[in-house]
Parts: sequence; C-alpha cells; structure tokens
Amino acid sequence: MRGLPLPLAALVDQLSTLPGVGAKSALRMALNLISRPEEESKNLATSLSELHEKVGFCPECGSFSERGHCAICRDTRRDGALLCVVEQPVDVLMVERSGFGGSYHVLHGRLSPIDGIGPEQLTIAALEQRVAKGGVRELVLATSATIDGEATAYYLASAFASNPITISRIARGVPEGGELEYLDEFTLSRALEQRIPW
Amino acid sequence: MRGLPLPLAALVDQLSTLPGVGAKSALRMALNLISRPEEESKNLATSLSELHEKVGFCPECGSFSERGHCAICRDTRRDGALLCVVEQPVDVLMVERSGFGGSYHVLHGRLSPIDGIGPEQLTIAALEQRVAKGGVRELVLATSATIDGEATAYYLASAFASNPITISRIARGVPEGGELEYLDEFTLSRALEQRIPW
Repeated sequence: MRGLPLPLAALVDQLSTLPGVGAKSALRMALNLISRPEEESKNLATSLSELHEKVGFCPECGSFSERGHCAICRDTRRDGALLCVVEQPVDVLMVERSGFGGSYHVLHGRLSPIDGIGPEQLTIAALEQRVAKGGVRELVLATSATIDGEATAYYLASAFASNPITISRIARGVPEGGELEYLDEFTLSRALEQRIPW
Repeated sequence: MRGLPLPLAALVDQLSTLPGVGAKSALRMALNLISRPEEESKNLATSLSELHEKVGFCPECGSFSERGHCAICRDTRRDGALLCVVEQPVDVLMVERSGFGGSYHVLHGRLSPIDGIGPEQLTIAALEQRVAKGGVRELVLATSATIDGEATAYYLASAFASNPITISRIARGVPEGGELEYLDEFTLSRALEQRIPW
C-alpha cells in the first residue's frame, strides 16, 4: 500500500508469502502486530528464528524430531516391522491420531515430474536401506490419494516388489460421515469397486 | 496438534493470535515455514523484531512515521489548516489514496465505553492543543460510520463547537459502484435523506 512505512511494507510482503495469506490479510496482520505490545512481535520473532534450529528431522524415519531419533522410533513398544510410508512429517501426526501402532518412513515429498521431483529427491534410498537391513515386514503406502501420490505409491510398490515383504496401500472409499449426495463420482465408483463382504 | 514438536506448537499458538488466522491456517503457515529455507524464517523474524523500533508515530499528527515528523506533516505544500481526523494510522493511508491534500490527526482509537475507551485514551487533548495554537481552519471528522465512530464524531463536534473553526463530517451514502439491490436499508435511507440538488 502506498504510504506504508518501509519496514511495515516489508513485513506485509513477507507475510503474504505464507499459504492462504493475501496482501489484504497480510496488511491486517502487520497492523495488528504493530498495535500490540512490542514484546509479542519479539516473541513471535524468536519462535521463527529458532524454528529450524530447534525442529529437525529424525535420522531414522524422517519425521519431526527435536533432537536425534524421534519419540516414535525410540519407543520399543511400537511395531518397528510395520512401516507406514507417508509424504510429509505432518502426515505422521495425522496417522498417529488414527491409533496406528507401527513405525514410519517420511518421503519428504511425492514424485512430481512436472516439478522435477524424481525418486532421488525423496528419501527412497534410505527406505531401501531400512528394508535391506531386514526387520521390515510390511510397507503401508500412505501417500495421498492424488495423481502424484498414487504414482509415488505405484513406484514404491514396483521398487520393493522383489523383496519378501508385504506391500499394502491405504483403503480408499467413502469418508466417515460422508453422505453419498455430496460425494464425487470417482470416490463413489472406487468405493463400489472395492466393496467388502459384510 | 498432538505430537507436534513444542517449538512448532508454540509458533502455531502465536500465529493463531493474528486476525483471521485460526488453528488450522496457523499450522499450515508453520509447516510451510519449516519446509522453506531457514533464511526466510530468519528474515521474517528480523522484520518482526525490528517492527516497533523502526515504525513509530508522528509526534504532530500521530500517523505512522519512521523517524520524527511524518512526510505529510513535513510537506509544506499541503494545507496544514485543514485537518482530517481519523481513528487509526492506516486510515491516513486510505484517505491519502482519495487525493486529500490537507493534514491529519490520528485519534488512535474511538470512544467505546464498553471497552473503557474514553476521551483520555484518545489523542483528543493533543488535538485541542493543535487547535488552540491557531492555524486550524477546519476539522473533517472522518471517524468510521459505526456507532462508536459516530459517537466519537459527535463528541469531537461538541468539544470544538466553541472554537471559531469549521467542523465537518465525511458524507455517508451509496458507495461508488453500489447497486441499490444489494444495499442495506440504513445506507439507502441516509442517501435519500441527504440527497443533494442536481
């Protein structure tokens, strides 16, 4: 906005690169911050500057970890032979909420030739090492139900086909609470195709 | 979200205090920031921590100012005798876009008894001093067209009634491009009442 002091305009520019934040809401946030006590902006600044130092990734599974191996990989009560393969660290949190008791492998992305993301850009080599070391019984491919996610699952299923492990894919169908009236035809078609005996 | 590393959870909490940002979009922003180069979070942190140091208020009009008097108060080509009274510094930017050539006085709020905002919490004493010094010809009351904004305008009009200056209020009516079909009845009623000869 014309007339906005430069430091405020710079903050608006930076805020508007965040997902779901346009120029107008970035301005609203910046004006809100400047109207609040200086301490609050400072605290937010501290959280941001320490973010990458304090939050890293588990060297074993690639999920979020504050230091070394993550809590899930360190938990000996969990089934380390059952690996749920997901795209992003946040997906681990989502699967955790479902009560899954196995371990994880985070790909840190999904195959996307158009964006130049091939198998080398993902943590597939690390997954191959984990499987080669033995001790993995099943890979649950929990990549997203999108074209790229499906392609990634297909690639992994092929890559690990020669290993004596079970490979599975999370089920697709009608979501819990889903009303048929509001469902897209592809989901419904898939749910009918993959119907299971009562 | 359960399982979120603490530094990330703290960032999500802080982001979700921003206007228009809920827990879900705050999480999305935090995950986006952690997936981007560390430098970008650091830069945003710097902008935030310097915000209050670098952006202050003009000692004359109360608008944004990076240092001392603001560019508008320093501009001798502007009409310093015509003061537009607004609620917030950002309102100055909005009025500037309209091509207004006078000067400003920012109240830094509006009367709101329910929030404990009385005349003492606003910069009304400073406005009285500016008027008392002489050189002010007209006060254009440009507080918002809300109940509190209207009450603030009413208060100011009464407070300055004994001064030999003109007091005016910005016009209210149909906004530019406004179709009658979508207009509320109060705006339309006001526009009819305050109709002007062709």
